[in-house]
Formats: sequence, structure tokens, C-alpha cells
Amino acid sequence: MSDVADALRSSLDGPWAEVRELARRQIEPGRFGPPETDLSTEDYRARVLDQLLDLASLGFAGLGLSTDQGSADQGASVTAFEMLGHGDLSLFVKAGVQWGLFGGAVAALGTERHHERYLEPIAEARLLGCFAMTETGRGSDVQSLRTTITHDPATDELVVHTPDPSARKDYIGNAARDGRMAAVFGQLVTADGTGHGVHCVLVPVRDDAGRALPGVSIGDCGGKAGLPGVDNGRFTFDQVRVPRDNLLDRYGAIDAEGTYSSPIESDGRRFFTMLSTLVRGRITVGAAAGSATRNALTLATIYGLHRRQFAGPDGQDVVLLDYRVHQRKLLPALARSYALMYAQNDLTRTMHEVLRAGDDADERDRRRLETRAAALKVAATSHASTTIQTCREACGGAGYLSFNRLGKLRADTDVFTTFEGDNTVLLQLVGKSLLTSYASQFEDLNAVQTVATVARQAGAALLERTISGSLVQRLLTGAPGRDADDALGDRGGQLALLTDREEHVLETLAARLRRAERDDPRQAWQTFDAAGEHVLEAARAHTDRILLEAFAAAIDECPPGEAHDLLDLVADLFACSTVEAHRAWYLEHGRLSPEQAKRLTGRVDDLLAQVRPHAQTLVDAFAIPREWLASDLLDPLSSTEVEASVQGAVSGQGVVTTG
Amino acid sequence: MSDVADALRSSLDGPWAEVRELARRQIEPGRFGPPETDLSTEDYRARVLDQLLDLASLGFAGLGLSTDQGSADQGASVTAFEMLGHGDLSLFVKAGVQWGLFGGAVAALGTERHHERYLEPIAEARLLGCFAMTETGRGSDVQSLRTTITHDPATDELVVHTPDPSARKDYIGNAARDGRMAAVFGQLVTADGTGHGVHCVLVPVRDDAGRALPGVSIGDCGGKAGLPGVDNGRFTFDQVRVPRDNLLDRYGAIDAEGTYSSPIESDGRRFFTMLSTLVRGRITVGAAAGSATRNALTLATIYGLHRRQFAGPDGQDVVLLDYRVHQRKLLPALARSYALMYAQNDLTRTMHEVLRAGDDADERDRRRLETRAAALKVAATSHASTTIQTCREACGGAGYLSFNRLGKLRADTDVFTTFEGDNTVLLQLVGKSLLTSYASQFEDLNAVQTVATVARQAGAALLERTISGSLVQRLLTGAPGRDADDALGDRGGQLALLTDREEHVLETLAARLRRAERDDPRQAWQTFDAAGEHVLEAARAHTDRILLEAFAAAIDECPPGEAHDLLDLVADLFACSTVEAHRAWYLEHGRLSPEQAKRLTGRVDDLLAQVRPHAQTLVDAFAIPREWLASDLLDPLSSTEVEASVQGAVSGQGVVTTG
Repeated sequence: MSDVADALRSSLDGPWAEVRELARRQIEPGRFGPPETDLSTEDYRARVLDQLLDLASLGFAGLGLSTDQGSADQGASVTAFEMLGHGDLSLFVKAGVQWGLFGGAVAALGTERHHERYLEPIAEARLLGCFAMTETGRGSDVQSLRTTITHDPATDELVVHTPDPSARKDYIGNAARDGRMAAVFGQLVTADGTGHGVHCVLVPVRDDAGRALPGVSIGDCGGKAGLPGVDNGRFTFDQVRVPRDNLLDRYGAIDAEGTYSSPIESDGRRFFTMLSTLVRGRITVGAAAGSATRNALTLATIYGLHRRQFAGPDGQDVVLLDYRVHQRKLLPALARSYALMYAQNDLTRTMHEVLRAGDDADERDRRRLETRAAALKVAATSHASTTIQTCREACGGAGYLSFNRLGKLRADTDVFTTFEGDNTVLLQLVGKSLLTSYASQFEDLNAVQTVATVARQAGAALLERTISGSLVQRLLTGAPGRDADDALGDRGGQLALLTDREEHVLETLAARLRRAERDDPRQAWQTFDAAGEHVLEAARAHTDRILLEAFAAAIDECPPGEAHDLLDLVADLFACSTVEAHRAWYLEHGRLSPEQAKRLTGRVDDLLAQVRPHAQTLVDAFAIPREWLASDLLDPLSSTEVEASVQGAVSGQGVVTTG
Repeated sequence: MSDVADALRSSLDGPWAEVRELARRQIEPGRFGPPETDLSTEDYRARVLDQLLDLASLGFAGLGLSTDQGSADQGASVTAFEMLGHGDLSLFVKAGVQWGLFGGAVAALGTERHHERYLEPIAEARLLGCFAMTETGRGSDVQSLRTTITHDPATDELVVHTPDPSARKDYIGNAARDGRMAAVFGQLVTADGTGHGVHCVLVPVRDDAGRALPGVSIGDCGGKAGLPGVDNGRFTFDQVRVPRDNLLDRYGAIDAEGTYSSPIESDGRRFFTMLSTLVRGRITVGAAAGSATRNALTLATIYGLHRRQFAGPDGQDVVLLDYRVHQRKLLPALARSYALMYAQNDLTRTMHEVLRAGDDADERDRRRLETRAAALKVAATSHASTTIQTCREACGGAGYLSFNRLGKLRADTDVFTTFEGDNTVLLQLVGKSLLTSYASQFEDLNAVQTVATVARQAGAALLERTISGSLVQRLLTGAPGRDADDALGDRGGQLALLTDREEHVLETLAARLRRAERDDPRQAWQTFDAAGEHVLEAARAHTDRILLEAFAAAIDECPPGEAHDLLDLVADLFACSTVEAHRAWYLEHGRLSPEQAKRLTGRVDDLLAQVRPHAQTLVDAFAIPREWLASDLLDPLSSTEVEASVQGAVSGQGVVTTG
């Protein structure tokens, strides 16, 4: 690795660099990577379980699960999961279910007795568990789950029940084969028939021999489009009884008399507080999506630097990455991956601080964390889907072969866009949250637009920044004014352009929805529904802005030198290609003139030409050990050996003869 | 099926409706559909071979392969392949290799003796063959293949040889397991050392028992991201000798004296003529991509009509397709699928006529056919990738389960964007071809812009229309002028908007490249390379225009009534959402004002609301037999049964006990 690549690596590795280095040494591909041959579903699941147990022996889960939650190193835990995302994603998901979701629910929603009894066996994978939230009929709408958890004072037990087929727990990882216990979410009901909203209870589902326990029906989701090593399954509960103690009762408890109590009065607020403690899972998915994308970009970029096709002007075949259209495919995606990695590092640090503060955490900080976690989960997973797909296509037929990994990366990450929160639903959540915090600055929603206009004219910031105010000030001071040509060449100007889009989209959205306030419920619903794309657009504009902020902050922290300059260039490419992608908006709103929009394309082309010579350095900086990426794409000649070893296995099963 | 749906079906079924009806009756899913359980690679390949043989017994291949090529019903053949695209795509590709590519090469490039000897055994699948064109080092650049076919006058044999590892034949369907013979493309060399360019020769590769023949090394490409039933493999030839007679010599022959002759003098022109006879394969891939996309849209639309999530204003959970953001995901894609199906029908008819004319076909017609085949292959396959992906995500976790087919559809069609011509390379081909035919209207390329401007002011058509002049005239006459608001509400106005984009993109491209004419080769290459996106844009604009033309022509042929009116509405949605997707261009070029661009979004929203009630009818009209689509997505309650049957199979492999 060159010095520049090494300096970039150091910048990208972020606050938990030592966890990344440890993982680079410990996560041997033979031990934790994907299998080299096709496996049956059963063999694949067995292999991934073995890997999980192996990982447990390395103390992997200890980082995030600690009886004393305040002392758990959540940042290190997420970073470790992120590194696992470079390996077999089946293992990442299996581990995420066991330690992140199941263990995380016990840690965050349980109390001392649960922690003492369960966290150690969970961390050591002696107790394998499931996170049984989603139902066949309810995925995104968790608040309306139909599974019931009813207290029976006669025996002081909780009765867990599936009232109808749509309430069956579905798609549950670890359920079809290995889980012994499930953290089951359902409506808690006390003996007087009062419902207290969604709570979580621990339900043993299998005996020691692995047989389903009485009253528990277990189904298998069967094959999936990806993640073959994860045993997703289904639970149906027929009046299953567990001790009252099994209720994870940090936010809602039932005493020996059968009386319910909670530190949070409102069912709704309690529900969202409970969900917010589970934010780590969502952050982890975004992080792993980033790792998988960097795997793919590394493979496709190196292939594009080797592979030649069609003779150039000098008669020699041209390297793919010397074609402008090929640069267009890979390099803006690479720049966005840089921005995402910096934003993810920053998110991990923020999460670490908020979770460490525990109940002392500021309510606003917690809400901001959730919004950013949702925004970056969407950004990272949708970027993964499109970029890995682009990488596959950029490698042609070679990209389609299993041995070259891109197909598997694509298939395994595919569900990331809809699990741990469907991306569309999450974007709506981000949009609504921005709107709320935006509107809360004004007494009267009707005044939103006026005040916003005045505030902007006065140069006041309406949006919360994700980076230090002094850096924002430094960037914006001296940034060129509203002329887009100049602005695009300057970090502060770029930031102003992205901020302007976010602010204006939010402003007009607020104004549009203001009208709905006065309407009857049906019309209000229709107004909001019709504004659906507008809400998504606000969330996307917000995401682009915080990505650039994170990139700018990282550059600010990078020591002067070649690496710093190269990051500057990549950030320019990110900013300009982002504005280019949304140039219809800038044109519609008079922020770019038609001539400026056309020149912008030329500017992006220039940046591509400048970034092109650094392509190898930029992927080297991801510092993914080569043995993790074993693939012919890295070395076009290596496939010859594969052929020789396979050839002997060819056996004709002739039913036909040559004519 | 409702009367309206039936009338739509009749319109969509097109010129070879009876072939579609026959397929709907004959292609039983149990016999020709995908397997219901996971199969090993070997079992999957065996199953697909059995299906191929079964298909042969139905006389499937007889339609397209006939000793008398003039009498072969190529349109029926392509339509039959298109219907096969609704089933298991592994079988479609296996059949495409056997009959379309291998059989097609023998039919189109061979002469009487080849036809008599081979076409019948190929059609009956008694002789299984491969189409060995692509090499490890050369995919898109076929003209530079390195395999050599050298005539040895001493024995009057041809010596087929792989000179280096990059010349290995790669990704070849039917090669790894079943093929007995290969149509091998390589550089033909006569004894005097003269090269005559790429030709095709028949090479036996396995003996009756299925063992590789001497000098032939066969490799296995192993697992792939999709198409598991296709045995892709590799060939390396070590001085393999075949009789001179094995040369497919319609376009280039060697006589007993070893003298080469060809009806086409130029190596380049001969090469492109040979390739052009193989156009059917590319058309077939686009057709099957359309079928797979319609499968996915049918599944996702029906799911969206059943599935409910989150309570609406009346307290009842809202059907997904009642959300505007969900309509945005599916309905514009559905409208484009209609446009594509009409354009594909038209392409199939044109191909049928050109191939039937054989050597008498007009050279310009042949070239136009190639351009349209390339444009629609790209349009259909990229639409398949993005739309099937959207459908998967629109079905959430359910969409990820193998049983629900979307993942498999996505994975199987994935390679369609890069095989039978990489989409980027094909778009470049389309762009260059448009440029050539455009420029050929002028003596002097320098005059392009002036003449174009004059011609357009005079209302003259610069572009070749794909539909009858009288229909174009009728549509454009009475179309509103240049005001985009009015234009968008009128078919003629919509056509004018799409035509305007194509013309202007081509004009400016021609002007841009004109400068390169005067430069030295390196600068010319750079100018062309830098215009890469511009060339792709021209090809895409062209495609959008011919899609709308095909849609308009189909509506014109549909009898007045509800179906006709519904098609009108769907065409409006296609046209408006297409302009909306490219509104940056229309804004940049002053064709839409910012206000008009914003109103356009409202117009698309209105159309979505109008199309929404007809969603079921629109997918019913695809008339895909329900049993071909067996999936829980069609009936949310059916998965309960799956669970029951699976449950007994759950076996714990307990290594852990509950804590």
C-alpha cells in the first residue's frame, strides 16, 4: 500500500481504528468467509452456526453486551460488525440476530435479573435466540402487532398467543433451525383486559434436543434470494405460558398483584422509546452495507484497471477505466462510498455517546440519533444495491460467476433495503422528523415560510448541523455567493447548494402540509399521501447534506499532504455529481441556469479525469485484505487454474450422439 | 378475466397471438417451470436438459429451424421463446443456446450440406451444441477474437487452436455438461498465412459417452449469480483438426485447392453481415426479459392490492397500492412494460419480414432492424433489472423468499444486461448508427446543424419513423404547438416532445463530433470518448421515441371502447413519466419552464390516480396463467399451509441449552 493510501486508510478507519486492525488480523477468510463451493441449505446453515460459535470464542460479542450497559463499548461493537460485513453476510446477519437484536433486546429492554441470567450465555452463544417482532401481516407497522401477551394472575404467568394467521411471527432469523429462545414482541394485556401496548417477553421455543416446545409451532421460510446461511423461520404460539419474570420490564412491569406500571405514561411514547433503544441494529445494517459495497467497488475497480477491450488510437486495447462511460459508472459511486463511510463513522461515535449516557441522554440527542440512523441506513443500503449491481455489470460475464463474488454480494445485501426498517418507510420517518424539528422553531406553523425567508435573508441557520459550528462557519465564510459556477468549486459553496436544496424542500413541504391541518382527517390523509414523494425528497436532500458535512469534517481532520488533497478532489466529485444528479431540482428552482447545468456536466467530467489516476489508491485505502476478496477479478490470469482443476470433474451424461 | 382485460390481451398478444395461446395451454409449470425445491447444480442441470428434450418433442424448435430458411416462421419462433420467458429462465437460455444460437449459426452461416446434415438433429435435440464466440479476453470486441482456424492443405483439414489463455472460449452455455459440438468463431487463416477475419466452424467437442475429445479441454464456469440450470463452461483447443467441410461457409469458403473466396470482399463488411444474421438471439433476449418483467409486475401488483399496512383515516389498514409512493414505484413501470411489449411485437414482425426476404432484404432495412434490435434489447433488459428489483422491494420480506419467485427472476435476468451484447456497448452501437443515418442525409457533416435547423423550421422529418407516415401525420396534425402543458395532454404533442429531444441530442452530438474529424487520431478518440454519455443519451432518447410510436400505433389498431380508452391513459402515463424522468434535459434546453416542470409532476400524479383502479385489469391482460406464477404473493393466506408442511421437518441440532 502506498503512503497516500495508508494515510487515507488512517482517515477512513475512524475512531475505532484498532478494532478494524484487529479484525483484519483475526477474521481469516477460511474461518469466517463465504464457502468456496456450493453448499446445501442445511450445510450452509450448519457452517454459519459453527462460525458464530467460533466468533463467540474470540469474545466478539463481549464488546457490545455487558451486564453494565453503561460500560459496554457500543462503538467498538458496531465497528466490529462493520468489519464482519466484509466477510460472509450470512454470518453477519446470524451474529446480528444473536447479539445485536436478541442480545440487544435483553440488554436494552430487560432489567438486572435478565442481564445477570442471560447476557453471558448470549455473548458466549450458549443460549441462541431470536428477535420475534415482525408478523406475517405487520412488518413496518410494529405498533399494531397482534400477538398477545396476557397476564394470568391465577398462575402469575404470561400467556403468549397468536390470535390469527396474520399474527404469525415471520422471517425470524435463527428460528428455523438453531434458536432456543425468542424475544417475542406483542400486545401486553393485564387481567382486567387493559392493553398496555407492545412489550417484549422471553419465550423458550425449543428444548435442549432442538424440538419445538409444546404450544410453539415452528416453520421454515425456506430458500431466499440471498443469505442462505441464515435460518429464517416462523413461530405460531398457542397459549404458551412463561413466568411473569420473563417480561423484559425496563419500560413496563407487572407486579405480583398483576398491576401494570411504567416510567413512561403514554403507550405511544413508551413504544417509541423502547424502539429507540434498538437503534444499534439499524446502524449496524448500514455499516455492513458499506463494507459490502467497498468489497464490490474494490473488485470492479481493479478489474477495470486490468481489463482491456477494443483498440485505442495507438492500436493497443484500452483499459476499461480509461473510458469515460466506465469512469462514470464507478467513480462517483466510489466518491459517495467515501462520504458514507465518514458519515457512518460519525454516526457510530454519536451512537456510542448517546447509548453510554443511557437514561441521562438528552431527549433531543436521542431523537436526532434516530433520524440520522434511519437516513444513513437508507443511504448506505440503497447505495449498496445500486453500486454492487453497477459493479457486477461493469465486470460483464465475469461479474456473474459465483467465484467472483459480486452476485453473492448483490443477493445477500438485497434485503438490507427492506429489513431493519423498509427504506421507503424510514425515509418517511426522516422526512417527518425533519419537519417536526423544523416546525418546532416556530410557534405557528402558518408562519413557517415567512420566518424561514426572513431567517435565511439574515443568514441564520435553520437546519441543525452535524459538524462543528466553527467548521461550518469557516467553510461558509469566504464561500462564493449564489453564482453556482463559483459555488461548485468551493466546499463552502457546495455545502450552501446542498443546504439550500434541503431547506427549500422542507419549507415548501411545511407550507404544503400546513393546509392539511385545517382539513378533515380524510383530506388531511390525502394531502399527506399526495405529498409522499415530497417527504422522501426532503429526507434525501437532508442525507446528501449530512454526507457532505461528514466528508468536510474528515478532510478538516486529515493532515495536510497528498492524502488531504486527494480527499478534497474526491469530495468535489461527490458534491458535484450529487448536484448533477439533482440538477432538475436546481433548474426548476432557478438555482442553476440552463447554461450552468450544462457546464456542471463538463465539471464532473473534468473531476473524473482527475480522479482516474488515483483509482487504485482510493480502493487500496479501504484496506480490505486481499485474501478476503479472493476472486479472478483481481487477477485475470488466475482463472486458468480453476479450469484445470474442474476439468477432470466433467462427466458426460450422454443421451445423444453427434449427428 | 374481465372483457376489458381480454380486449387488452388481444391487443398485447400481437401478430403471433396463436403461438401465445398454444404456449398458455402447452407449457405446464410442472413440466417446464422452475423447480419447487432447492436443487444441486448437477440436479438442476439434469432437470433443464430433460425439459429441453421434452420441449423438442413438442416440436418447439421446428418453428425457427427449417432446412429452407425462407419458410421458417421466425416470428412464431421468437414469440414462442418469449412465452418460455414466463417459465424457468434457465430453460429459456438452454433452449436459446441450442436452437437460437447454435442452430441459428448453422442455419444462417452454413450452407445446404450443413442444413441437411445438422438442422433436424439440432431441432430434435439429438445433437446438442454450443455457440463458442466469447473468449476470456474478448467479449464485446468479437472482431478481435484470437482463436485461429487454419487450413492445412496437406490433409485438407481445418486446425482449430487456442493460441493463449486469453483466447479460451468462456461462459459458453451447454459447454460444461451437455454439448457434443460447438460452433466455434475464430480467425480463418489460409495456408499462405493470409487472415480472412472471423468465421465459424463446427467442432465436435465430446464423444458419445460425453468425454472431451482429444485436444479439447473443457472447463466448468461453476456457480453463477443466476441461471443455475445452464451449464456454462470453457473450451481450450490444442490444434484440433476437423474436415474442411465443417466450415460454415455461406459468407466465406475455402476450396479443395485451399483458396479462399467470399461473396463479400471487405473483411469488415463480411464480419458485420455475418453478425447481422444472428440478430434473432438479441431480439429473443429482449422478448424474454419482457416476459420476466411482466411476471414480476403481476406478482407485485396483486400483492400491492392485497397487502395492507398502517391505518388510514377510516381506521382500516390501507392497501399498499393506495399509497401514492407505492403507485409511483409500480405504475410507471407497468406503463413502460406496455410500451415495450408493443415495440417488441413490432420488432418481431419486422425481423420476420427481413429474415424471410433473406439475401433479397434491403440493406437499409437490415441495418435498421439491427439498430432497433439493439435499442430494444437494452431497453427491455435494463427495464427488467430495475423493475424486478422494484417489485422485490415493493413486496418487502415476502419478496425475498425463494417461494415467491422475485429473487430468482431478478438473479436469472441479471446477466441479460451484459450478454448478447453488453448494454453500454449496444447503446453506443445504436448511437453511432443513428448518427450515421442522420449524417448521411447531408453531404457535409459541417452542415448538419444548419440543415437540421432549416428542416425543422420547415416541419420536415429528420428521423426515420417506425410507424406509418399517415399515423404520424394524423397525430402531429392538430397537436398543440410548443407549449409543453398542452403538448403533454396530447399524443401528437407527446410524440413531438420525445422527437424533439432525440433530434436535438443527435444534432448537438453530430456538431460535437464534427470537430473530431479534423483532429489527429488520439484527439479524435478522446473527443469521441468524452462524448460517451452524449452518445448513450442519443440512443436512449431514440428508444423512448420509438416506444411511444409503437404504443400509439397499437392504440390506433385497438377497436374503440373501454380497452382503447384505458390504453390511451396508460400511454399518457408512459409519455408523461418519461418526460418527467428526463425533465432536467427539457429544462436545460428551454423546452419546459420551471413552472411547467413542476406542473408535470402533478400531471403524473393525476395519471397515477386514474390508472390505479385499473391495476388489476392491466396485469390480467398479460394473461400469464396463474399456475405459472404459483406464489404466496397472489394469496396472502396460502403460506399457512407451507408452514404446516415444513414444520415436521424442523430438527434441532442442539449444541446449546437454554440458560
